Amino acid sequence: MGSGSNVVKEQGCEFCSSPGGPVLWQNEVCRVVRVDEPDYPGFVRVILNRHAREMSDLEATEREALMRVVFEVEAAVRECMGADKMNIASLGNMTPHVHWHVVPRFRDDRHFPTPIWSAPQREAVVPAERRERAGAIARSLHRRLA
Amino acid sequence: MGSGSNVVKEQGCEFCSSPGGPVLWQNEVCRVVRVDEPDYPGFVRVILNRHAREMSDLEATEREALMRVVFEVEAAVRECMGADKMNIASLGNMTPHVHWHVVPRFRDDRHFPTPIWSAPQREAVVPAERRERAGAIARSLHRRLA
Repeated sequence: MGSGSNVVKEQGCEFCSSPGGPVLWQNEVCRVVRVDEPDYPGFVRVILNRHAREMSDLEATEREALMRVVFEVEAAVRECMGADKMNIASLGNMTPHVHWHVVPRFRDDRHFPTPIWSAPQREAVVPAERRERAGAIARSLHRRLA
Repeated sequence: MGSGSNVVKEQGCEFCSSPGGPVLWQNEVCRVVRVDEPDYPGFVRVILNRHAREMSDLEATEREALMRVVFEVEAAVRECMGADKMNIASLGNMTPHVHWHVVPRFRDDRHFPTPIWSAPQREAVVPAERRERAGAIARSLHRRLA
């Protein structure tokens, strides 16, 4: 998780004390982890390695390095999953440590067209094929971010 | 709204046929509009002028120009509003035309700490002072993005 001695950590912060999920890819700036959300295979998070609260706390160089990864992740997830729409969000109200949610959305998913944090629109069974596709994301990321 | 003849438009798209709100600032790439959401003074959107569906449909140069604005907007809103946390999101499930929500969050707002799209956590009265602060955002943007 890029937990070298030069990475600033904050006591009590979930993303300073743990990777935040199985790591699919990482570099010195950030890591990409799989989110365990049964309704949303292909949902990943990009988590800054060091502790910072807001994007506006980052210097331009670090911000650009992080966003380059976020947008390659968006492209990889979109391609692998064949999503109808991609959602990207940096919220952090509960865990104020910079991280980005990257979520592939489908017209038949549990919340479409409302955000995944809203009340469900329907009961939704995720197609097995969609779960299988999610397995290709790590490989795609390694190729894109080589 | 940067609706010059070189801006690609899509029929039936809300953000191709209207500015999407009162324009606080704009350039050739995008516009920043005020969102009329009584629970969230200081909520603004950054809307790409041309029609594109996903961030991954943008060339690097255009993407960087857009994100430079998004992050200056985040900084301006954070500073003007004195927010407890900033939320940034590109969803577009209902209006698949690239745009970013930039939302100042407060511990006492209607949904904190959950996303603004979730079920409310409480009834919340927005302090008058918070509404007044929102009036300073356009000026801050013009200064930052001069």
